[in-house]
Amino acid sequence: MSDTSSALSVAGFRLSGVRAGIKKREGLDLGLIVADAPVPTAAVFTRNRVKAAPVLLAAERVRSGKAQALLVNSGCANACTGKEGLAAARASCAAVARALGIRAELVLPASTGVIGQLLPAGKVEAAVPALVTGLDAGGVDPFSRAILTTDRGPKVAQVRLRIGGRAVTVLGVAKGAGMIHPDMATTLGFVLTDARVGAPLLRRLLRGATDATFNALTVDGDTSTNDTLVAMASGRAGNAALAPAGRDAARLGGALEEVLGALGRMIVGDGEGAGHVVTFEVSGARTAADARQVARTIATSSLVKTALHGKDPNWGRILAAAGRSGVDFSPDRVDIRVGDVLIVRRGLAVGEEAERRAHEVMSGSDYTVHVKLGARGASARYLTCDLSAEYVRINADYRS
Amino acid sequence: MSDTSSALSVAGFRLSGVRAGIKKREGLDLGLIVADAPVPTAAVFTRNRVKAAPVLLAAERVRSGKAQALLVNSGCANACTGKEGLAAARASCAAVARALGIRAELVLPASTGVIGQLLPAGKVEAAVPALVTGLDAGGVDPFSRAILTTDRGPKVAQVRLRIGGRAVTVLGVAKGAGMIHPDMATTLGFVLTDARVGAPLLRRLLRGATDATFNALTVDGDTSTNDTLVAMASGRAGNAALAPAGRDAARLGGALEEVLGALGRMIVGDGEGAGHVVTFEVSGARTAADARQVARTIATSSLVKTALHGKDPNWGRILAAAGRSGVDFSPDRVDIRVGDVLIVRRGLAVGEEAERRAHEVMSGSDYTVHVKLGARGASARYLTCDLSAEYVRINADYRS
Repeated sequence: MSDTSSALSVAGFRLSGVRAGIKKREGLDLGLIVADAPVPTAAVFTRNRVKAAPVLLAAERVRSGKAQALLVNSGCANACTGKEGLAAARASCAAVARALGIRAELVLPASTGVIGQLLPAGKVEAAVPALVTGLDAGGVDPFSRAILTTDRGPKVAQVRLRIGGRAVTVLGVAKGAGMIHPDMATTLGFVLTDARVGAPLLRRLLRGATDATFNALTVDGDTSTNDTLVAMASGRAGNAALAPAGRDAARLGGALEEVLGALGRMIVGDGEGAGHVVTFEVSGARTAADARQVARTIATSSLVKTALHGKDPNWGRILAAAGRSGVDFSPDRVDIRVGDVLIVRRGLAVGEEAERRAHEVMSGSDYTVHVKLGARGASARYLTCDLSAEYVRINADYRS
Repeated sequence: MSDTSSALSVAGFRLSGVRAGIKKREGLDLGLIVADAPVPTAAVFTRNRVKAAPVLLAAERVRSGKAQALLVNSGCANACTGKEGLAAARASCAAVARALGIRAELVLPASTGVIGQLLPAGKVEAAVPALVTGLDAGGVDPFSRAILTTDRGPKVAQVRLRIGGRAVTVLGVAKGAGMIHPDMATTLGFVLTDARVGAPLLRRLLRGATDATFNALTVDGDTSTNDTLVAMASGRAGNAALAPAGRDAARLGGALEEVLGALGRMIVGDGEGAGHVVTFEVSGARTAADARQVARTIATSSLVKTALHGKDPNWGRILAAAGRSGVDFSPDRVDIRVGDVLIVRRGLAVGEEAERRAHEVMSGSDYTVHVKLGARGASARYLTCDLSAEYVRINADYRS
């Protein structure tokens, strides 16, 4: 159902991206999404106790359930910047609102970059005319590039489906690639759809889709101060309003999950220094929460992640990580499979030949490790990447 | 009070270390400590749900409160090896018991190395004659080398104090250097004293000293299946038996804490690939548990640890880690100090000059970062090291 060959656009939205000079490095650093009118909007934000100014402002504004514009910058997180930071976020949004002739409360800000640096509102304001002039229904590409930091490339996914006989599009744009960890709307992500859907249902569908995707992946176990995921629905597809519990709502939720899932894989695949995207699937747990806890503990273990980097089927580290997860299980009932290769049966090594074959699977860029805690029970999946020397280099040098 | 210049020995104990050929690499890999008679013994073990065979056996045997010998090997963890692993641990201890003419139940095993490999009991048994012949009161050095894995060097600390007019010695030997994380007796550690102290009090003192030292440090956030910390007391100092709540008991506890603290610093300083030992001190928390939780979250953050490696006073990462710790605090009341240099005042950057001076502090091999959450309240300390590309190299290549 994913569709990236056809034009990337969603009826009712225009996008743009320009260089405002916020980033030290070359490249676009300021993006804008504008709906033709105020539209139903939902968002999830970081659960970090330390929230960036744009998160505080966007969270306050989205409570109305309506927004018309998203102003996003890279190169500066505008986090831990106090009242000045909030004022800079407000001023930037106000400049966009003036240029568009709309109320400032309809503009949601999002920022990503180094923490502790104040957003240069003057640079943003100076760039607003070009940003507004550049708005275009086909402007996904410049927008998607303007929001990147250490990413190797833009992250865009689009899904088309039919709801009530109408063609509906769901488009997602996101950025990675470090300080990425579960239990919030990780990193920055923006989902646009032309489906007609009210803000309460959109919020519920967004939360459900986030839980299964952005909240079940990790790059480095750190949680950003700026994580923001916003969904806007223009209603331009002209479908009949969706019943909250109906089949069409579930289908739209499925499309959201597909888009966020695709973006999530791109984020992990572009994890700083990563060469492998690995899904840990844990089954046979007492509860889904237990399964998730075990999967998360394995997926965030530095020793597991370095073993993934070395293509080493070091199942002892996987088992040891599961063992410290706080979840009760019997080690002597655990099976571990790398791809299709069983390497641990009932807590014991299968043998060297199996590990040699597992090593081959681990040479691939994308594979699944299945940890079966018992014969039956709940399961969960968690997405992670390998930990490389390159990750250290990127993060030791990030500000220098 | 630390004393490493004088001879390392404790009345009532003999030690040795030999090469049994368990390690693939060169070097000693089997160590033995023997008391002149069964003596009061206490131990703490890993809290990992997955426990190695030697942990299961030693935990069972130490419940009696008495032991006479510790048999320790490196090069093989004998973890996740099922019934065969338990049998190998038992057979190895039995061989030592036979050679010493004591009951096998008085021999406690400990192992460290790769998980999932069965202890080669035959190699251990073949080495027992040389191991027993080599026993010597001055044998701390070969023992301390025989228990190492990826460590850069042996870890030994000795403290002398007077209790009831008698000279008392507390000697500790430990190994590092990866899969090291809080909330258990991390890694392998052995404490010998000639103090006269009963097993129940020794156990209480050991737990208290462990909590403040081995349980408040991290290298990589992973918890071993094999962590074992054993304390034995020969009573040869001849002091009057210690009252459980008395001043002398507290002084012995202090000596234990000093020895374990020194070993802990050596372990973190020898953390795989580490170049900096950093203490995170968190103050102004509502409870000591809150302070510890914040300190631990900061100390285990990959982004903080890579910034330590880059000597980058990236306080945003410190604040962001604190913010995801689950502890409630007001970001705008936080002060952060690197050494003596204040870099964050009330949640805001002090400035570039301060960060330049903090960078200088961070060029040192050992410094403290103080995170003040508020004016008054509980505090806690946590020891960590930087995360380097070398760590990744060591752990990606460990088994290959």
